[in-house]
Amino acid sequence: MFTIVCSTNRQNSLSKEISRIYQDLLKDQGQESQIIDLQDLPQDFVVSALYDNSGKNEHFNKYRELMLNSEKFVFIVPEYNGSFPGVLKAFIDGLKFPNTFTNKKCALVGLSAGVQGAGLALSHLTDIFNYCGMHVLALKPKLARIDSNLKDGVITDELYMELLETQVKQIIEF
Amino acid sequence: MFTIVCSTNRQNSLSKEISRIYQDLLKDQGQESQIIDLQDLPQDFVVSALYDNSGKNEHFNKYRELMLNSEKFVFIVPEYNGSFPGVLKAFIDGLKFPNTFTNKKCALVGLSAGVQGAGLALSHLTDIFNYCGMHVLALKPKLARIDSNLKDGVITDELYMELLETQVKQIIEF
Amino acid sequence: MFTIVCSTNRQNSLSKEISRIYQDLLKDQGQESQIIDLQDLPQDFVVSALYDNSGKNEHFNKYRELMLNSEKFVFIVPEYNGSFPGVLKAFIDGLKFPNTFTNKKCALVGLSAGVQGAGLALSHLTDIFNYCGMHVLALKPKLARIDSNLKDGVITDELYMELLETQVKQIIEF
Amino acid sequence: MFTIVCSTNRQNSLSKEISRIYQDLLKDQGQESQIIDLQDLPQDFVVSALYDNSGKNEHFNKYRELMLNSEKFVFIVPEYNGSFPGVLKAFIDGLKFPNTFTNKKCALVGLSAGVQGAGLALSHLTDIFNYCGMHVLALKPKLARIDSNLKDGVITDELYMELLETQVKQIIEF
Repeated sequence: MFTIVCSTNRQNSLSKEISRIYQDLLKDQGQESQIIDLQDLPQDFVVSALYDNSGKNEHFNKYRELMLNSEKFVFIVPEYNGSFPGVLKAFIDGLKFPNTFTNKKCALVGLSAGVQGAGLALSHLTDIFNYCGMHVLALKPKLARIDSNLKDGVITDELYMELLETQVKQIIEF
Repeated sequence: MFTIVCSTNRQNSLSKEISRIYQDLLKDQGQESQIIDLQDLPQDFVVSALYDNSGKNEHFNKYRELMLNSEKFVFIVPEYNGSFPGVLKAFIDGLKFPNTFTNKKCALVGLSAGVQGAGLALSHLTDIFNYCGMHVLALKPKLARIDSNLKDGVITDELYMELLETQVKQIIEF
Repeated sequence: MFTIVCSTNRQNSLSKEISRIYQDLLKDQGQESQIIDLQDLPQDFVVSALYDNSGKNEHFNKYRELMLNSEKFVFIVPEYNGSFPGVLKAFIDGLKFPNTFTNKKCALVGLSAGVQGAGLALSHLTDIFNYCGMHVLALKPKLARIDSNLKDGVITDELYMELLETQVKQIIEF
Repeated sequence: MFTIVCSTNRQNSLSKEISRIYQDLLKDQGQESQIIDLQDLPQDFVVSALYDNSGKNEHFNKYRELMLNSEKFVFIVPEYNGSFPGVLKAFIDGLKFPNTFTNKKCALVGLSAGVQGAGLALSHLTDIFNYCGMHVLALKPKLARIDSNLKDGVITDELYMELLETQVKQIIEF
């Protein structure tokens, strides 16, 4: 059972579309998965679910438990201001530490409107997840110019699809 | 006029204490400053002030304008999960792009309960601010084991104070 | 069979001492290992073994082959100028690409005279090895103030030894 | 007087061509510059000019002095194995510390055969130069797919030229 984290709370995000595509790719390999969409978090979670309030927001706790009980993750990460969305890190800051990630494994996918494909975002996230004790798969596809390469819920760039398919096979074995 | 950003929304944070100390150090050099404390942001700003709602939250806009009209920044950054607080990046994600930071200058200070002093957080932030067009002062004090080195609003470690005083002089000239 | 890379060519390096300690720790777990010491590389390898000369230096090729035929690596990395030694990256630049590292696994250990324990060096190296297709173990001990914590070939800091022992067990299973 | 560092020792490198183009752009703005080409370093400098031999290699010292006496630098950095060339860092490891870079300023340009334009290399270098006390200009052009965008010593991509021209004006004022 994989947990795919759609790593932004923007409405109708392309990350959500990529998350669904990823779910299909996992299914093609016989793997079940659930999508956690940060859009579903309580709107005030950066106050009501962090620090002294950690673990006290029931709505947030639902996602906290799902994360805690997952063994393998895929993070679909859009590039905002040269890194990952702040809301993703705030979500991580509200999770149970250190059990949520220690000795678990994840795969990272970056996407961007621009040409970098969230390369720095994935580097920063690797630092964070390693700090939390989670191993990160080496292959991290960077889907640049995503607006031109995603149409009607389908990735049109062949190389991108190959990279994702390779990654799916690798994270299953990782 | 400097803008000091207390880069967490945690209540009674040590970052707030360091922000006040920094304000005094600037004052000693004849420089005025204001502190923006992320604790004062609207609790739901990650939804009500970002993306399609960018610029639409009046409460948030107050801080957005203060940032837009600042020329020099100091960020006091605690280490959370091996990087900066998610709420800081979410705050940045809600600011006016690209005018808020382009061709401006900033200094970064890291603090941590542990031994790293937020070193990776400051590296990640440098990437982000450089992406946004803001120059980052090379000297970035890393105040490790801050709990043992801060007492009654006073930094007791002499080296830490020297580093901050040096940084203050450098950011004034930068 | 593990390959431990003593990641500097400095003579009588502390990295060499740590490499030997690591070898003993692996042995305690029933694992054989070999140490590749960058001090043994040909003195002119940055010219005679790179780029158009790649694969043409017989002396260098000995180490190139050892790396190519290894499956699991441990890199003992001292901090020079805020990152890894340049000679380590030059060594990597002379290895067979991409086969040397693709789908292999490694553990990283940092050491420094100062307080950072080569934290940024290990982050940079993680980027590089991930780029090369090699998975990096999340746990990366950072042995700061190594001069005070290493005596007569023995690490005197108990926490450091615990971290290394934990890492050894993890990299065997990784 | 600017010092442009052609940051590889590969023969007939594209970095050398970009260095010459950069020199012309500086000249257009009335600025003199010298190019230091790492190809000119002694072939065994990683042994004969580092650590205990620091400052002892006369041939290397010529470049060491040029670096020490420069105030503003431009580094033209090709992407090798997901970061900067190892030989560049080895060169830095042989320079006089800390005076070579402290309180000086530099601009970074990345280039790559692939699509990333050495983005991570420039991030890593920023960490290193900041550690050494040198301020890095925020704007860091990333010249991806350089083979298709450089012909007969001329950069054919208009955006790339605009970025470089903007950077030249900024580093002069920085």
